[in-house]
Amino acid sequence: MTLSPLAPAGFPDLPTIDGVRFAAVAAGVRYKGRTDVMLVELAEGSVVAGVFTRSSTRSAPVLDCETKIKFGGEGRAAFLVNSGNSNAFTGSAGDTSVAAIVAAVSDATGVENHRVFTSSTGVIGEPLPHDRITVKLADLNSALDADGIEGAAQAIMTTDTFAKGSGRTVTIDGRPVRIAGIAKGSGMIAPDMATMLVYIFTDAVISQSALQSLLGTLTDQTFNCITVDSDTSTSDTLLMGATGASGVDVGESAAFAQALHDVMLDLAHLVVRDGEGATKFVEVRVSGAATDADARKVGLAIANSPLVKTAIAGEDPNWGRIVMAVGKSGAQANRDKLTIRFGDIVVAENGWVSPDYAEKAGADYMKQQDLCISVDMGLAGGMATVWTCDLTHGYIQINADYRS
Amino acid sequence: MTLSPLAPAGFPDLPTIDGVRFAAVAAGVRYKGRTDVMLVELAEGSVVAGVFTRSSTRSAPVLDCETKIKFGGEGRAAFLVNSGNSNAFTGSAGDTSVAAIVAAVSDATGVENHRVFTSSTGVIGEPLPHDRITVKLADLNSALDADGIEGAAQAIMTTDTFAKGSGRTVTIDGRPVRIAGIAKGSGMIAPDMATMLVYIFTDAVISQSALQSLLGTLTDQTFNCITVDSDTSTSDTLLMGATGASGVDVGESAAFAQALHDVMLDLAHLVVRDGEGATKFVEVRVSGAATDADARKVGLAIANSPLVKTAIAGEDPNWGRIVMAVGKSGAQANRDKLTIRFGDIVVAENGWVSPDYAEKAGADYMKQQDLCISVDMGLAGGMATVWTCDLTHGYIQINADYRS
Repeated sequence: MTLSPLAPAGFPDLPTIDGVRFAAVAAGVRYKGRTDVMLVELAEGSVVAGVFTRSSTRSAPVLDCETKIKFGGEGRAAFLVNSGNSNAFTGSAGDTSVAAIVAAVSDATGVENHRVFTSSTGVIGEPLPHDRITVKLADLNSALDADGIEGAAQAIMTTDTFAKGSGRTVTIDGRPVRIAGIAKGSGMIAPDMATMLVYIFTDAVISQSALQSLLGTLTDQTFNCITVDSDTSTSDTLLMGATGASGVDVGESAAFAQALHDVMLDLAHLVVRDGEGATKFVEVRVSGAATDADARKVGLAIANSPLVKTAIAGEDPNWGRIVMAVGKSGAQANRDKLTIRFGDIVVAENGWVSPDYAEKAGADYMKQQDLCISVDMGLAGGMATVWTCDLTHGYIQINADYRS
Repeated sequence: MTLSPLAPAGFPDLPTIDGVRFAAVAAGVRYKGRTDVMLVELAEGSVVAGVFTRSSTRSAPVLDCETKIKFGGEGRAAFLVNSGNSNAFTGSAGDTSVAAIVAAVSDATGVENHRVFTSSTGVIGEPLPHDRITVKLADLNSALDADGIEGAAQAIMTTDTFAKGSGRTVTIDGRPVRIAGIAKGSGMIAPDMATMLVYIFTDAVISQSALQSLLGTLTDQTFNCITVDSDTSTSDTLLMGATGASGVDVGESAAFAQALHDVMLDLAHLVVRDGEGATKFVEVRVSGAATDADARKVGLAIANSPLVKTAIAGEDPNWGRIVMAVGKSGAQANRDKLTIRFGDIVVAENGWVSPDYAEKAGADYMKQQDLCISVDMGLAGGMATVWTCDLTHGYIQINADYRS
């Protein structure tokens, strides 16, 4: 797997979160010669919140996590994640695998069963060889390390070409509060919840219900605004644990919410930057729509259009395809009020190509790696921004022989 | 442009429709060295019905046709179609071009302005050099020929790799009634009306309102059930002319409706078989859904999924991606009641891979050119069938440099 041309320089230095420890191991679930299982342990006094895929065929681990999140509570907790096999559409054997892994984690760590959250990512519909995981639990438990987050991020990768992390330290009431998150995901990324795996940790003091509510709101502004291929996974999971170790209550803090938003948006962008076969990172800004919901419809119609995405891959300033996507979005639109921009270049307005637009300027702009396409609908104040990547030969290559 | 591997052996022998004449010419609208404009003349006593794209950015010729269809009426009529430029998103100049072409057709043929229907297909957002068309009208008019339908079908092609035609002769009250149709379309094909250009002719006697109503119903069962890339064109047009020359009234005839349905389904399938880069023709049959609408949602979610379509391109019997697509469709679904088949092979049932399923059987099946994927939802009686093709390197190639 070649590194994505849109990858950042390296894995960032993340703040250490007091009360959180990580371990990773090579269990050979599917892949050879790499780590594929991570264990995270959260200290006494932790709360856990989660957001999950809405797929009606979601996996056994997702269903198990949903139940446990609803149960709420506070105390020690553990996350166990494997890559290579998603344990989705695996019938009652899927539940058996989850139960076996949860029991093994509980045995090894002493965390109660109902505080053990598991995720699985990879191929759908094949039995999970959970024995390969459970046999490694003792090793994982003894390897737990407060500085092991990068190794954990590597272990959860599937078709990802780089490990994804983001962190912030924010000062509240004069004291530091830390947030660190990791994510995996490069295909099946569409905005119906994260469509990826994301784990975020903080030492903030916050109630489970406040964290759950904040996480839902911020997911809509971040992970639900990205799309790679419009497909939605059966396994997507965002889990966040707060240990409270900082002693700083962030329940009403706008600064904390902003910092968490930024970490989530960073991770969402990194997932797009690792989109299968991606060579361009594209921001689609829609303004002037009848409503915010309409703006989002237009943004996603553009961001998901195979014709728009192949034009971007070909560095073709094909604004006609943007018009096509606006037209098919189902949003209220008046052809003659649209303004379309590539970066700062006004390409089309008043239902026609702009008199000042020079094709060469558009073509030069499209050669950049990071692009911004703006559409002003000219109707009212509805706005939305979504992010996507281009559609290339690389996407076909990766997905035409993923299983073989 | 290489011929699609899914192309039929050749253009079919179509029945001659009394009262309809065709001509084609090379006007150089955009392409060199090929015909790019067709003229069709319908004799005295003809009625014309039409169905159009629902895009909110639809083209000037589409808007003009819609108005004229609503006006109704009976008498001589003409269709003028150019390829290479869609005259879409061309502001008020788009209307000027339509008016100029309509006037030139009227001058040359003597057909009244409000009975002249035009279509344009090709690049969006560039001014249509309509002078290149109007200057050819006298030539076109003198070339009109009852047997010119294949030449007309060739002139309307854009990225199509073969001309598309279908016909039927049906006996009603002991007398023959003939139907012949042509179509173009290989990209931007998604089920929101035809997303292509289709022209159908018959010598049946039928009122304009009956024909209009029949055409709408049959479009939902044919052109609205195919998808290539989920994108919707700004120009899509289905026009049908009935000359009445057979003298056979088909107003209530089920046999006529069935024959017209078959012509429309043939043309819809030919469009899929010429899908950009297509190497597989795929029927997706959904049964047992809560409602027909739910079945359609599931069928389209499968048929539009980039992950399903790339797996098919790779001849990978990846039924896990079918489960993913069912899950994201938004239709009511119970994972454990799904039955998935590739052809007659039961792949998955009861929420798990079928105990009798052998991966080799699935892999062998996927090597065929024509595939059928069936999903039984196991819930109720809702059914739908949709058709699509695979997503290949060819699609990327064609669309990453269409304009250049």
